[in-house]
Amino acid sequence: MNDTMTSATIEADPAVPIIRITRDFAATPAQLFRAHTDPELFVRWVGPDGMTTTLDRWDATTGGSWRYVATREGMEFGFHGCFHEVRPDRIVQTFTWEGDPDGVALETLTFEDLGGGRTRLRAQSLCDSFEGRDAWLRSGMEVGVDQGYAKLDALLASGQIAGTAEGAEA
Amino acid sequence: MNDTMTSATIEADPAVPIIRITRDFAATPAQLFRAHTDPELFVRWVGPDGMTTTLDRWDATTGGSWRYVATREGMEFGFHGCFHEVRPDRIVQTFTWEGDPDGVALETLTFEDLGGGRTRLRAQSLCDSFEGRDAWLRSGMEVGVDQGYAKLDALLASGQIAGTAEGAEA
Repeated sequence: MNDTMTSATIEADPAVPIIRITRDFAATPAQLFRAHTDPELFVRWVGPDGMTTTLDRWDATTGGSWRYVATREGMEFGFHGCFHEVRPDRIVQTFTWEGDPDGVALETLTFEDLGGGRTRLRAQSLCDSFEGRDAWLRSGMEVGVDQGYAKLDALLASGQIAGTAEGAEA
Repeated sequence: MNDTMTSATIEADPAVPIIRITRDFAATPAQLFRAHTDPELFVRWVGPDGMTTTLDRWDATTGGSWRYVATREGMEFGFHGCFHEVRPDRIVQTFTWEGDPDGVALETLTFEDLGGGRTRLRAQSLCDSFEGRDAWLRSGMEVGVDQGYAKLDALLASGQIAGTAEGAEA
């Protein structure tokens, strides 16, 4: 496993207010797609350790929308957005943390097949200002990213995410 | 009318890949909101002269989605997106021209009451690169903006857009 990334790379673009996250997984693109769209799978890995995620609305299809509430130690954090496009190799959605209700990011996820049962996830978050982007980077978001993806690694290793082609279209 | 803008100002932000359009209307915020959300009104003004707009999907509510096809001289142009937020003073939506199917902009419209029956529309389009933003600016988009808003002026002057508070919530 030495030749693959096992922790996420988080980069701030110098020219545009974008955060780019890159992370490799021992999974097929179809498995990563299911992990991001199947509501029962998604809540099992998203977010940092100790956080419980409850979906309030979830329609992971082109033109659908979503809302979830993350809870830890009595604190609630709401998030919502709409799905601009959902297809097996690409998900484009909007993202608002309700603590900053007028802040909106445009997120693009792609799943690149590396062969040999490995897939590279690229997640791009586009913000409308460098100030907003940099405040998000300073918020400690990397903890949620790293711990969430470690949970996704474990879920994949447990064999609970089917990876067939029909899985990608379910 | 000399003290108000009657044509749109279109600005390219030097620091971030954003286009900002500002335009004043002889209308209340509620009337402008209806013009942007009521499907029968929207198709009567959007786009350049000679273009016919047909809605394929239209749910102008938070979490809804839209698609329309614009036709002129036998050519068809498809556009689609989702509505991240729809409220009386603010609409946030995604926007794709299907000729560039992986290009997505995040659009934010606000309606600012200037008093005296006038409202300032601000439309911000956030792109994920300066190249994409500048290509859009060079495409002649200002013709569609100016001619569309001139049609909206005429529709407002005709008295066919109700401006009551209940109109904004209809």
